[in-house]
Amino acid sequence: MTQLIADRRDIEFVLYEMLDIEGLCNHERFNEFNKRTINMMINEAFNLAIKEFLPANKEGDKTGCEFENGKVEIPDSYHRALDLYTEGEWVQLADPGCPGVVGMITNALFFGACSSIMMYPGLSYGTGLLIKGIGGEDIANRFSKKMLAGKWGGTMVLTEPDAGSDLGALTTSAKRNPDGTYSISGNKIFISGGEQNYHENIIHAVLARIEGAPEGTKGISLFIVPKIWVNEDGNLGETNDVVCTGIEDKMGLKGSCTCSLTFGGNGKCRGILLAGSDPEDGDDEGEGLKGMFNLMNGARINVGAQGYAIASSAYLYALDYARKRVQGKNLEKMRDEDPSVPIIEHPDVRRMLIWMKSHVDGMRSLILYVTNLTDLIEISDDDDEKTRCQGIIDFLIPIIKAYCTDKAFEVSAQAVQIYGGYGYTKEYPVEMLLRDSKIFSIYEGTNGIQSLDLLGRKLAMKKGKAFMDFLEEIKKATTNAKNNANLEDQAIKLEAAIDKIATVAMHLGTKIMPKSISAGFSFSKPFLDATGDIVMAWMLLWRSTIASQKIEGASKKDASFYEGQIKSAEYYIYSVIPGTMGSLDAIINGNDAIVTMSDEAFG
Amino acid sequence: MTQLIADRRDIEFVLYEMLDIEGLCNHERFNEFNKRTINMMINEAFNLAIKEFLPANKEGDKTGCEFENGKVEIPDSYHRALDLYTEGEWVQLADPGCPGVVGMITNALFFGACSSIMMYPGLSYGTGLLIKGIGGEDIANRFSKKMLAGKWGGTMVLTEPDAGSDLGALTTSAKRNPDGTYSISGNKIFISGGEQNYHENIIHAVLARIEGAPEGTKGISLFIVPKIWVNEDGNLGETNDVVCTGIEDKMGLKGSCTCSLTFGGNGKCRGILLAGSDPEDGDDEGEGLKGMFNLMNGARINVGAQGYAIASSAYLYALDYARKRVQGKNLEKMRDEDPSVPIIEHPDVRRMLIWMKSHVDGMRSLILYVTNLTDLIEISDDDDEKTRCQGIIDFLIPIIKAYCTDKAFEVSAQAVQIYGGYGYTKEYPVEMLLRDSKIFSIYEGTNGIQSLDLLGRKLAMKKGKAFMDFLEEIKKATTNAKNNANLEDQAIKLEAAIDKIATVAMHLGTKIMPKSISAGFSFSKPFLDATGDIVMAWMLLWRSTIASQKIEGASKKDASFYEGQIKSAEYYIYSVIPGTMGSLDAIINGNDAIVTMSDEAFG
Repeated sequence: MTQLIADRRDIEFVLYEMLDIEGLCNHERFNEFNKRTINMMINEAFNLAIKEFLPANKEGDKTGCEFENGKVEIPDSYHRALDLYTEGEWVQLADPGCPGVVGMITNALFFGACSSIMMYPGLSYGTGLLIKGIGGEDIANRFSKKMLAGKWGGTMVLTEPDAGSDLGALTTSAKRNPDGTYSISGNKIFISGGEQNYHENIIHAVLARIEGAPEGTKGISLFIVPKIWVNEDGNLGETNDVVCTGIEDKMGLKGSCTCSLTFGGNGKCRGILLAGSDPEDGDDEGEGLKGMFNLMNGARINVGAQGYAIASSAYLYALDYARKRVQGKNLEKMRDEDPSVPIIEHPDVRRMLIWMKSHVDGMRSLILYVTNLTDLIEISDDDDEKTRCQGIIDFLIPIIKAYCTDKAFEVSAQAVQIYGGYGYTKEYPVEMLLRDSKIFSIYEGTNGIQSLDLLGRKLAMKKGKAFMDFLEEIKKATTNAKNNANLEDQAIKLEAAIDKIATVAMHLGTKIMPKSISAGFSFSKPFLDATGDIVMAWMLLWRSTIASQKIEGASKKDASFYEGQIKSAEYYIYSVIPGTMGSLDAIINGNDAIVTMSDEAFG
Repeated sequence: MTQLIADRRDIEFVLYEMLDIEGLCNHERFNEFNKRTINMMINEAFNLAIKEFLPANKEGDKTGCEFENGKVEIPDSYHRALDLYTEGEWVQLADPGCPGVVGMITNALFFGACSSIMMYPGLSYGTGLLIKGIGGEDIANRFSKKMLAGKWGGTMVLTEPDAGSDLGALTTSAKRNPDGTYSISGNKIFISGGEQNYHENIIHAVLARIEGAPEGTKGISLFIVPKIWVNEDGNLGETNDVVCTGIEDKMGLKGSCTCSLTFGGNGKCRGILLAGSDPEDGDDEGEGLKGMFNLMNGARINVGAQGYAIASSAYLYALDYARKRVQGKNLEKMRDEDPSVPIIEHPDVRRMLIWMKSHVDGMRSLILYVTNLTDLIEISDDDDEKTRCQGIIDFLIPIIKAYCTDKAFEVSAQAVQIYGGYGYTKEYPVEMLLRDSKIFSIYEGTNGIQSLDLLGRKLAMKKGKAFMDFLEEIKKATTNAKNNANLEDQAIKLEAAIDKIATVAMHLGTKIMPKSISAGFSFSKPFLDATGDIVMAWMLLWRSTIASQKIEGASKKDASFYEGQIKSAEYYIYSVIPGTMGSLDAIINGNDAIVTMSDEAFG
């Protein structure tokens, strides 16, 4: 029987064979955990995800959220799943003490089972952490405590109808009251969980501009705006003037309500300044957005993880279907009298499956690798090493966000394709994954924005040192692989790709950008995509190197598993990377038709 | 104002500047038409599509079809649109006398406005034609006449729960009655328009196996099974034993009902043998499926046209949005005091738009080019030339079906991306196009099946002559382009791609296939995709060659249009084709991990 959501053996492979999570647990910081306890937690997460989240996912897609008179009802089945998630203290795994990889991989199981449900605790926790990080102890006790415990909801209130990717354009205003609070006024849209009937209270983290603050991003401040006012003693006060005016009817992720909120429609919305620029104080310009951006870095990794998780679910559904669905003859035996075979025997189906598997495995490794770097930073005393690791993380964040979410969509589409006509119906689970996953490439900064971040900021960070450190990490893997004669050629091919991406980066920086910034940025997404492919090849070759060492003498089951690693790397490096090399050639060509074509010529 | 559905100027460019439709109309076969009348028809089609089909499309997606007690109600708004389409005799454009390109481009406008509605007349017409073609005059008068006129519906009844891509596995049976009719018995699924309340009667074209006929495809016969029996004089008789047992709840194309039908559940379903193998007659083995396949060739081009049409609509919506949506600063001027700009000024948005435009224009040219070949065959007296043209058509059919539908989905996904969060909501039209277009890659033979057809049949057809003729056609375009110094390098690049695809085809045939058929077919889809890219480059270079000649001295509007052609070709050949070259390298690598990996190793 093919597994659901994620491959259990593969998770353990990443944690204990690729990464050294057992070693990590020897450190005093994490020594309450060990392989046994971590595996138990993964077991429990699997159980909860499969028993409660998966059924709720299907129902939530069907019923969606209900809006009436300013109130939003989330799907009924979500309440029980959220109760169990909260009672199980799953969200608190992200607290220091537990290795980050454990929280990441368990949450990814919940993402893979039902991404919509996870929006609620994810936002409570993220916003609670943001408030705690900036606000200090009193504020943390007053607001964050209940958010981090999953008792109160939280939101990130950024977008306005005319301020989406461009937050600098926002017009929601704040005015200081005599008591030190601020009156908030404005309309916000696309607020996930902006109003809902699960939590007793919702704490909004709102971006707004204090009267007199400068235009653009530097004049933006960050406010705490509770749905129900919270007194300084932590007790609830009166209902605040925050009104939900509607929810979006969306393509997918239907169980997660996307709300329009009006703040101060009756002139009575109060907020607390958390960070930002009140001209009367004359300082802290740009601090409001900076605070939010810290939260967004973590959120972007989480969105990448949502992408990985949905891809993992889609792959396993498709694999299971391909094993069970009998249709057509084996191509090598096409006579009418030969028996029909499961479609996994058809080469084009296998091509789709191995493409999906390579990306799913590569993404799983990438996300846990980066999370492990954050764990290593926590226990390291070596400042240079911490800086080096943080540089690699920062470089990889836009790739995780954009590449993993684009691939999630493509993997889900392939899953639908493998199911054929059945996949297009709501009777089977894959079309929903396709619909759900499309939003991942849009929210938390569109994937285009991520590519601007990669090319415009991350590549040049510390004079390119983070990028060089990133390439060095890959070279460690190719050097290891070269010790194995069977992998030597693959390692050489991957090194050629590293050389080429370095050449392309240099070419963009020294040849294309100086001539035209716009022409340079017209290659930002192709550059990100190619880098992502190379990261996949890196992860897969790393896997293959370990698997090649262990396959001899392994149990039958393990040997099959290791064979999968070896074949996936082989496939990816010989059959996918050549296309990537071609795409990099295209950047070197540097054709500027994209930016020189006049607007009228588009039609 | 950006246009809706399709670019009017571009349609005329293809008809009168790329292809010589005016010249075609000089032939007596088509001389009732000329440029003026064709343009009038295109105008009318635009009007009907925009005024009636577009609003119905949105409503149909919302309401879907209703199933109750064996009856299916299609969306209310479809009735009026279908009445107008039928009264306007749009379906009859496909009759001889009107150039095929005119029927194709007008129908594509309706596809682009509402593909769901078009399923009903499309199937009436296609099935009517099939019955007429095989059945002879009496049968045509009895059934086809009213189908071709749009009075009766028609269906293609192939799929069963365990016989989808593998029709040879079907189990629906037929037994000869004393009166020469057959008793049909079996369950069919995924029957588009299998039951609906628009047409007075529905004529099902049903694949079934006569008792005693051989297994597999050669034992399949084709039957006419009317919903309501049609007497020999054409009058309606009693209701036949065909029961709709349900409709699919689908991801998209919701206005087109996808029915499950039970034939002969009460033992009283009568059908008329149209083609096939009744063992009592001892002949005609395999004729049943052959008849259906003739219909399917036309249907596959039409599905490709659906893909093109949805892509065209998606592109124009996205272009319009990109022109109107103001967000962020121009990258060359990033100060807060600079004005915000429409997002079409952002390089990454332009990259998406030019990618979409290149494919939309390329697909429009491809589909009309192939349809024009069928027109040319009709008026040609030269048998060799007819054979040559038919070979090119046959070679291109799987590419049109698979490539255009895959690109339709990708173009729609890019459209959603350009709309950002708005694109994910049902308030805007693009997420529906994304959902609708996914089925195109599945029905009428999955895109994987198309690639088997291309590699397994079409490439080897006439010892490769069709493939060589196809490449020669591209060389005509590169030879022309080389006369223009500005295009010479692009022509050389495209010729390198032609050489490479020829090398790859040879390599597959002589090196990979002889070693392992399965390994060969694991490259069928990548081969199809690469060929499709090269076809796009061919069409775009052809366009650019014409545009380059005409841009000097053209009106301002025309000059912009021609500039769009020149830039698109430049973009495609320098920025897309290098990736294609890399993908072809991957095929030459010939890595066989896809087929050598054991089933267990997939996880």
